Amino acid sequence: MQRKSFGKMPCPIARSLERVGEWWSILIIRDALHGFTRFDEFQKSLNIAPNMLTRRLSALVDAGLFERRRYSERPPRYEYILTQKGRDFRPVIVAMCAWGNRHFAPEGASVLLVDKKTQRTANPVLVDRRSGRPLNERDFVFAAGPAASERTRRRYAMIHQKKPFAGWRSSRPVRRSLQGRKRRGS
Amino acid sequence: MQRKSFGKMPCPIARSLERVGEWWSILIIRDALHGFTRFDEFQKSLNIAPNMLTRRLSALVDAGLFERRRYSERPPRYEYILTQKGRDFRPVIVAMCAWGNRHFAPEGASVLLVDKKTQRTANPVLVDRRSGRPLNERDFVFAAGPAASERTRRRYAMIHQKKPFAGWRSSRPVRRSLQGRKRRGS
Repeated sequence: MQRKSFGKMPCPIARSLERVGEWWSILIIRDALHGFTRFDEFQKSLNIAPNMLTRRLSALVDAGLFERRRYSERPPRYEYILTQKGRDFRPVIVAMCAWGNRHFAPEGASVLLVDKKTQRTANPVLVDRRSGRPLNERDFVFAAGPAASERTRRRYAMIHQKKPFAGWRSSRPVRRSLQGRKRRGS
Repeated sequence: MQRKSFGKMPCPIARSLERVGEWWSILIIRDALHGFTRFDEFQKSLNIAPNMLTRRLSALVDAGLFERRRYSERPPRYEYILTQKGRDFRPVIVAMCAWGNRHFAPEGASVLLVDKKTQRTANPVLVDRRSGRPLNERDFVFAAGPAASERTRRRYAMIHQKKPFAGWRSSRPVRRSLQGRKRRGS
């Protein structure tokens, strides 16, 4: 019932949450990114009840994040392969891992992202693909996009009014200036 | 009951999930990053039941992501301010927003991250802070860190065995080579 209302929200964050459903789903995606594909691999890794795992995998297939493939005819057995949509969730997992390591690992990191070749630890930071500038709060702000509803535009107008920033031009709303600027991942 | 078991996991992703608790929490953090601080602002924005909002805000305060401050003596009123720990969750939100826009916004983006000054759309990508290299799957892999338990090390040894990569040296386990390399956000 909560998930239904999330799905109706225009916010891309709310829609993302609707798709991954709940925590188990994120850990299943994590394991799949590690190369796990089979029911018993997920089950063993997560120590999750089989009926719960079945439910979560079905939901992830329905949401288009996994594809179910038969790998054995007799007995019929299936594996679960991440789709591109599912693989594209990886930055969320990486960001979550960095946050967990920073704040909830007083004993030191137990899992890290490392360079395959050099084995050096990576230090994840989000930047703008074109300019390479870090996407920090000082320089970048959420704003209504070209497909924003009236409600969303009012919402962000209110937010920006509350926290005004240099360079904001009320005569040229974000909605307009962003038209035609949509591109992959933006 | 699920959350308890998540908290015991050494994985930093599982620990992060334990802290943010559930979907509402992420949307509350999103709103707080937008500058909202008061109960009625969150309530109006999320259209969430007051008792649910009270519960989620308390949990977020307990987890150290928000600080509760009295802003009026009579009547006593409180606002909820993100701590540094809470603000540091922003990259997860940004990555989630990018994923939602990429895959679940057929009508175009309704919310985007934009440059405050130029109003140009940002295209978020995760890179390594030091080298600037994109943290893609081809080059970077999750591995056991210096504080990994025996179980976690076995787990990643198994994962890497399954998907071998160039440069992996079994005579010099990741655990060792990473010692002394822990730094903020890695």
